[in-house]
Amino acid sequence: MASVLPPIENLTDRFRTLPGIGRKTAARLALAFVDMTEEEAKAFAEAVLEVKSGVGRCPVCNNLCEAGKLCGICSDDSRDKSVICVVEDVRAVMAMERVRDYNGLYHVLGGVLSPLDGIGPEQLKLAELLERIRDNDVKEVIIATNPTPDGETTALYIAKLLKPAGIKTSRLAYGIPVGGDLEYADEMTLMRAMEGRRSIL
Amino acid sequence: MASVLPPIENLTDRFRTLPGIGRKTAARLALAFVDMTEEEAKAFAEAVLEVKSGVGRCPVCNNLCEAGKLCGICSDDSRDKSVICVVEDVRAVMAMERVRDYNGLYHVLGGVLSPLDGIGPEQLKLAELLERIRDNDVKEVIIATNPTPDGETTALYIAKLLKPAGIKTSRLAYGIPVGGDLEYADEMTLMRAMEGRRSIL
Repeated sequence: MASVLPPIENLTDRFRTLPGIGRKTAARLALAFVDMTEEEAKAFAEAVLEVKSGVGRCPVCNNLCEAGKLCGICSDDSRDKSVICVVEDVRAVMAMERVRDYNGLYHVLGGVLSPLDGIGPEQLKLAELLERIRDNDVKEVIIATNPTPDGETTALYIAKLLKPAGIKTSRLAYGIPVGGDLEYADEMTLMRAMEGRRSIL
Repeated sequence: MASVLPPIENLTDRFRTLPGIGRKTAARLALAFVDMTEEEAKAFAEAVLEVKSGVGRCPVCNNLCEAGKLCGICSDDSRDKSVICVVEDVRAVMAMERVRDYNGLYHVLGGVLSPLDGIGPEQLKLAELLERIRDNDVKEVIIATNPTPDGETTALYIAKLLKPAGIKTSRLAYGIPVGGDLEYADEMTLMRAMEGRRSIL
């Protein structure tokens, strides 16, 4: 029986290392390259290498940045340096930035506490966060980890960690999403939405 | 506001050209490269280029093969050269080969007839199929396009095309999938399964 060609198999294996890509999707993506033009494939390979050579992590907030520089947010003088929003990953920064409402800085943890996956406080950028708070005039830390069990634990952990420093810590509000439908909201969300209710007049 | 870094944006755009990858998935995949090691990224880029340089199309059946050679199936002398199974794409060949039951050859159309997408008979490897049948001693053509409307149309088109040559053409059986549940089978499938019922003793 004819087996899969080694180059295809190799690329399939590479794709499988990417997050959320399973065996079938990896094979589908690898096969797409067969019918690409030579130029397209080259451009793809170059784009991959460029990300490695041109993109780094901001030494202050761990956000993505041009290699060897501060990130665009940390180096922006118009931003409020007294507020730090703590997020899990870079995608959360992007989501917050799309809102165009928040004008403070960020701190990218690089994950959340997850004992089962062997991720403890040392694996996250927590020491760096404490250092930032010690060395700068920070007035508020907004903890914006995801509303998952691990995200919650991490939020609580950070809040406790910052308590001795006497800095105001807050958490994003829970509630029903705008445009959502009460019928489809889960009990936990509804409960939190009730708890967080606000007077409207 | 900080926008996405150009290398990330570039790689995201590249990923979006792959089948079934939307904006969010493309961004997620592109970001995964930031935290890869230099070696991993290089291996990925090389794997992409290797597929372009090392993989070609079999001049006989249009299946994937080492560049400039016949594919492993066409060059295998133990296979029955009098039966050709016509499939839409290479993934169908892989699926059939996993069964390890079929011992004939294949013919990869490279798609199905789809007037809305501008895919007519000229865009598929139909002339090549007719040529193969004319030049070789082919006894049966099994049409194994997918059971979609376009796949059905293509199957019928090919059957009509081959009729003058007097070659036996067949179509894969329709029916309920093994391990499936009648409750979840759609009406069309159940109808076809009834039509195709066979005596069991």
